[in-house]
Amino acid sequence: MNYKMMGRFISQILFIEALFMIPAVGIGLYCGETAAVKGFALTLGLMSAIIAVLIMLCRGAPSAFYAKEGMVCVGVSWIVLSLLGCLPFYFSGEIPSYIDAFFEIVSGFTTTGSSILTDVEALSNSILYWRSFSHWLGGMGVLVFLLAITPSGAKGTGFTMHLLRAESPGPNVGKLVPKMRKTAAILYIIYIVMTIVNIIFLLAGGMSLFESVCTAFGTAGTGGFGIKNDSMASYSPYIQNVTTVFMALFGINFSCYYLLLLRQFKSVFKDEELRLYLGLIFGSTALIVLNLRGYYPTLEETIRHAAFTVSTIITTTGFATTDFDLWPAFSKAIVMMLMLIGACAGSTGGGFKCARLLLVLKSLKRNIRQVISPRKVQVVRNNGAIVDEKILDNANAYLAAYVIIIFVSFLLVSLDEFSIGTNFTAVLACFNNIGPGLEAVGPTCNFSGYSVLSKLVLCFDMLAGRLEIFPILALLSRSTWTSK
Amino acid sequence: MNYKMMGRFISQILFIEALFMIPAVGIGLYCGETAAVKGFALTLGLMSAIIAVLIMLCRGAPSAFYAKEGMVCVGVSWIVLSLLGCLPFYFSGEIPSYIDAFFEIVSGFTTTGSSILTDVEALSNSILYWRSFSHWLGGMGVLVFLLAITPSGAKGTGFTMHLLRAESPGPNVGKLVPKMRKTAAILYIIYIVMTIVNIIFLLAGGMSLFESVCTAFGTAGTGGFGIKNDSMASYSPYIQNVTTVFMALFGINFSCYYLLLLRQFKSVFKDEELRLYLGLIFGSTALIVLNLRGYYPTLEETIRHAAFTVSTIITTTGFATTDFDLWPAFSKAIVMMLMLIGACAGSTGGGFKCARLLLVLKSLKRNIRQVISPRKVQVVRNNGAIVDEKILDNANAYLAAYVIIIFVSFLLVSLDEFSIGTNFTAVLACFNNIGPGLEAVGPTCNFSGYSVLSKLVLCFDMLAGRLEIFPILALLSRSTWTSK
Repeated sequence: MNYKMMGRFISQILFIEALFMIPAVGIGLYCGETAAVKGFALTLGLMSAIIAVLIMLCRGAPSAFYAKEGMVCVGVSWIVLSLLGCLPFYFSGEIPSYIDAFFEIVSGFTTTGSSILTDVEALSNSILYWRSFSHWLGGMGVLVFLLAITPSGAKGTGFTMHLLRAESPGPNVGKLVPKMRKTAAILYIIYIVMTIVNIIFLLAGGMSLFESVCTAFGTAGTGGFGIKNDSMASYSPYIQNVTTVFMALFGINFSCYYLLLLRQFKSVFKDEELRLYLGLIFGSTALIVLNLRGYYPTLEETIRHAAFTVSTIITTTGFATTDFDLWPAFSKAIVMMLMLIGACAGSTGGGFKCARLLLVLKSLKRNIRQVISPRKVQVVRNNGAIVDEKILDNANAYLAAYVIIIFVSFLLVSLDEFSIGTNFTAVLACFNNIGPGLEAVGPTCNFSGYSVLSKLVLCFDMLAGRLEIFPILALLSRSTWTSK
Repeated sequence: MNYKMMGRFISQILFIEALFMIPAVGIGLYCGETAAVKGFALTLGLMSAIIAVLIMLCRGAPSAFYAKEGMVCVGVSWIVLSLLGCLPFYFSGEIPSYIDAFFEIVSGFTTTGSSILTDVEALSNSILYWRSFSHWLGGMGVLVFLLAITPSGAKGTGFTMHLLRAESPGPNVGKLVPKMRKTAAILYIIYIVMTIVNIIFLLAGGMSLFESVCTAFGTAGTGGFGIKNDSMASYSPYIQNVTTVFMALFGINFSCYYLLLLRQFKSVFKDEELRLYLGLIFGSTALIVLNLRGYYPTLEETIRHAAFTVSTIITTTGFATTDFDLWPAFSKAIVMMLMLIGACAGSTGGGFKCARLLLVLKSLKRNIRQVISPRKVQVVRNNGAIVDEKILDNANAYLAAYVIIIFVSFLLVSLDEFSIGTNFTAVLACFNNIGPGLEAVGPTCNFSGYSVLSKLVLCFDMLAGRLEIFPILALLSRSTWTSK
């Protein structure tokens, strides 16, 4: 492990974080929120000191990243980002416990949206802004941002595919264009444009600029932190429907948008993951609407809440317009299934990912065929092309890690005396970066009742879920720290 | 698909089933249970007719089984065994609904032990005997029995490894001796001797012969049908402890016993699966005892109930001495984890199997190492020997099928308005062939509240779990019925 390289990398990441805190300070000054501004100022001072020390210590580090360093740097940088990013909450006194503040910002950066706050509306505007902005930054990845803005000839920024791969969600990272730097820039431009369009649609519905921006951050990052205690329940049907559509759009693989820009409509239309994703959205909504007959006064309301909930859960956003914990068991089971599946690879959403589900299903189908006719050689195809065995192997290993982490976390969280449904969905909601679970962590409740141990376990789950397990597991592997 | 071959095979299996019904008739005659005897007589008559027709229709069938035929025959034969095996329950009027009777016998043959009966003690002795005996027969497999008793030169019995592999639990079927027929015979001899020893221990505790035999059948097959409404709660601590030990013994890979007979103590002692299994038993018991502090009046009672419950769940037996649904959340979470893991491969127990868990864990560890150092070639070892990639691949595919079946079943069962905990553990308990789940299907409750659809789903799960998924999925695969 090359510690100098890691140190320099982290100093760069922290610099980006500090830059992004400045707008929050502006909001605080504008609104006259003294305590919050003091909190941000203290944090920025501390961060500057750390950055200076890191730069001094890590001069002359080599610039090429290897696979191992890439993994570890990504894992460590997200933890450091969170350790410092939560300080404004803590220093301002608005979240008095450091562990709660840490939980809240991890939930922000990982675009989970689980909260320990019982009264969100009591927060100051600058803190609310920072809280929502953490979703936006985490959604596309702070590292991808760093990559996008670094001039291509700059020294000492030895980004490689490993870094991008470690932070990007999904089983296969497609380079849109041969240059990675340009890929990152294209991704962020699409992201920014779509966020702005979302803001405009919300403004058109009569929302204030501040509310629109915060809501769009939560939507774009598929995060789910709201600025109201009832999440999105009190907003107009128009605002709710706009959010339903935009959540679903941000859950689509961004390379599809790039293909649309290139007018390759056919390959978008034929994309198997996109078809599965849209099929799941429409199919689940239809089943829930059928199951909810008579639950809401009108059909319009039923469809609106069903579509919103399906969209919020499959994209792992976590906003809520209704308390779906009160729905019948079948609808709740569909919600739990969507929790597990998650959005498309290469989107801002979390979860197991539709692409990976496709791979696992196809690999399973192949295995059944192989059992039936052992002598035939069977291959797995995706969008027509043969899938490499390593990718299949990796998808299956991911499933194993996924199941094991869910059950070990469930075991540890069960030390707190909540019901099976609460503990299980709390783990699912954090690990898949959704936000609310069911029962005592349902959409009208929060995570404040959990013990410190459980909160730490859930923080681990959020990070492991967002970084797709391996960078975080690599931190725990002995061979990371011993062998060369 | 060669239907003639399948027909002849099924006629042989049905013949064995009919033979094993005769002792039940004897008990019915001895106890003067007219209705039950009439039920058995009707069933035997019907079975004889079916066997005669099958033999006539399937003359001249070829004798060699291919992989596909093996899979399908095993799947179909278990379904036919159950469709006819439940008739005595139904014809005697003791279980008035055919679907309930079918559920009960599937639960028996698959050694699940989930019951739809609210009052077990109301059943006649001959029916109780047949119900418990179904566990014993299903535990080692009716097919293995057929194999064990068939003279090696007999015509028209083209058994191959495929058949044994399709019915035997675990990722790798070890032939104990080169001849399969002899392997099957050795397995059954060990099974019979251990069952007899268990009966003797129970008799020594003052149990009646009938009770001892029924209880030993439930223990040996790791089934869990009791003959009392409170399962094993009212029995003496001695009886409970004997059962704890014997359940654990029947959950061990039978090849270990064969190795013990050959005095190869070292390879038994070093067996990784056995170590994991025993480690899980002792570790879980210790954790539950700690978690239950003060729950029972004495430490002896705490240890007794904890050890019994751990043993009954990990071996997927399903007897109960206490209502563990009332335990604290952490203990219940451990129980749920043990439900998922299950017993050793090559035992009578069900579940995912310790051997497969080891393979998945090792394959995952290898994958993490591979991510860290992509250029190193990594192999997976088991008990020192390199594991074939196909076996690893298969274990991972098994996990995928396992997770998918659990979630689809959970979704369907959720159409009945029970809690998440109830529906989820009902599926876990049936799919892993355990018996009781938690909450409304906990150890003091039963499955009678579920709808017909849910009962059929759970029957599918029990069969899929017992036959290790692939033979049952093969029945649903189009390529089984189309391609050659």
